[in-house]
Amino acid sequence: MANSPSGDSVTDRLLRVLETFTPTRTAQTAAEIGRRAGLPPSSAHRIVSELVAAGLLERDDDRRIRIGMRLWELATRSSHALRMRQAAMPAMERVQSRIREHTQLAILEQDEALFLERLSGPGAGSNVTRVAGRLPLHASSSGLVLLAYGPPDLQNRILSGPLPAFTRETITDPSALRRKLAEVRLIGHAVARGSIELVSTGVAVPVRDETGRVVAALSVVLPREAAVEAALIELHAGKRDIEQSLGYRG
Amino acid sequence: MANSPSGDSVTDRLLRVLETFTPTRTAQTAAEIGRRAGLPPSSAHRIVSELVAAGLLERDDDRRIRIGMRLWELATRSSHALRMRQAAMPAMERVQSRIREHTQLAILEQDEALFLERLSGPGAGSNVTRVAGRLPLHASSSGLVLLAYGPPDLQNRILSGPLPAFTRETITDPSALRRKLAEVRLIGHAVARGSIELVSTGVAVPVRDETGRVVAALSVVLPREAAVEAALIELHAGKRDIEQSLGYRG
Repeated sequence: MANSPSGDSVTDRLLRVLETFTPTRTAQTAAEIGRRAGLPPSSAHRIVSELVAAGLLERDDDRRIRIGMRLWELATRSSHALRMRQAAMPAMERVQSRIREHTQLAILEQDEALFLERLSGPGAGSNVTRVAGRLPLHASSSGLVLLAYGPPDLQNRILSGPLPAFTRETITDPSALRRKLAEVRLIGHAVARGSIELVSTGVAVPVRDETGRVVAALSVVLPREAAVEAALIELHAGKRDIEQSLGYRG
Repeated sequence: MANSPSGDSVTDRLLRVLETFTPTRTAQTAAEIGRRAGLPPSSAHRIVSELVAAGLLERDDDRRIRIGMRLWELATRSSHALRMRQAAMPAMERVQSRIREHTQLAILEQDEALFLERLSGPGAGSNVTRVAGRLPLHASSSGLVLLAYGPPDLQNRILSGPLPAFTRETITDPSALRRKLAEVRLIGHAVARGSIELVSTGVAVPVRDETGRVVAALSVVLPREAAVEAALIELHAGKRDIEQSLGYRG
């Protein structure tokens, strides 16, 4: 697209505008958007007005700007996320109804675990995951599964990068992480006890598509000291159903 | 944003590119996108390449273009759709588990019912609804609820516009539609028997947010001749829970 005087493309500026919205910052003024996106006020106002006119952003009663329902619709109705999610929902609902704890589906996106869906019952415990939220690969059970079955260059990149601690249980040593990944591949699931929040344990299994590639992690979040056996049985039954619905004939 | 030689803004062109993707057309070549968006090939290739570089579109193994996971994430993580949906999910899951038929949440968007969520059990009957799909206001139970409790100018617009028939049961006469809307407001729910598909009956109730405004319709889709009483009880219980979670103190 056309470039601005500063040389960045309009797509870049659009992306910077959208990235100023977060799960905890859902409404902003045009001036705030411009400041956070690093755009001059006049160009921030122009781009916001155009996006509002197109329905991709919306102006609320206080004249603050929000993500537009039209953007959600266009991004969702033909997305891979929706296909994965629809394939997984019946199995996720069954896992959730039997285990009665948070049940989640994550995919690999830009070296993190991106959560496509999360189902929670009324009595479920603590859980930091959100729909369309992310967790680091080395610290979450979903991330460990996506990393263990991911491409070698991804593993090398994560193992040679920083491994920040979220709790005292997070694996922060590359050799320990390498051993953990080998263990995940050996047993076919990942258990992450207290590594994101001390009070919780994540349990995740890999999900393959019709090509046999691992494309997602199905997981539950249990209280820290819970036994994982019942969850593992439900996760493996759920994983098998999702894989069938994705066309995997393993 | 900067304008093209033809005078349309880059936001317009972006919107036209995104609109070429539909629930049944999830992957296209850049040339197909350009043709469907009415863009010259060179500018279609440039805009697609930029959007791919930004992660808003993705190129698959066949070099076909899809909606990018990053676009879904940005559009979802801070959206009003997600807030509504999260508030509604526990109630929707309960309705679905008890009625065992399609359970849906819709909002008003551009004079149509836009479906934010749909839960379906394994044995549920026919249903044309999709997540991020739309249905016309005059023909669907969700639409009738959103229309009955909608602003007067919306009602005038719909009542004076065309009312296309989807089946022989669709209300196509403005006076009959006006009577139906009054009936919906009187009894507090809408029943649409066979008006979208002859084999199905939709039942919908209004959902209010903290301001008391009707912001959504909660609905189930039953087989055509099913009794609606059990569904109505569950829908009203579900609606009350969603309204509480949205802060409505009716």
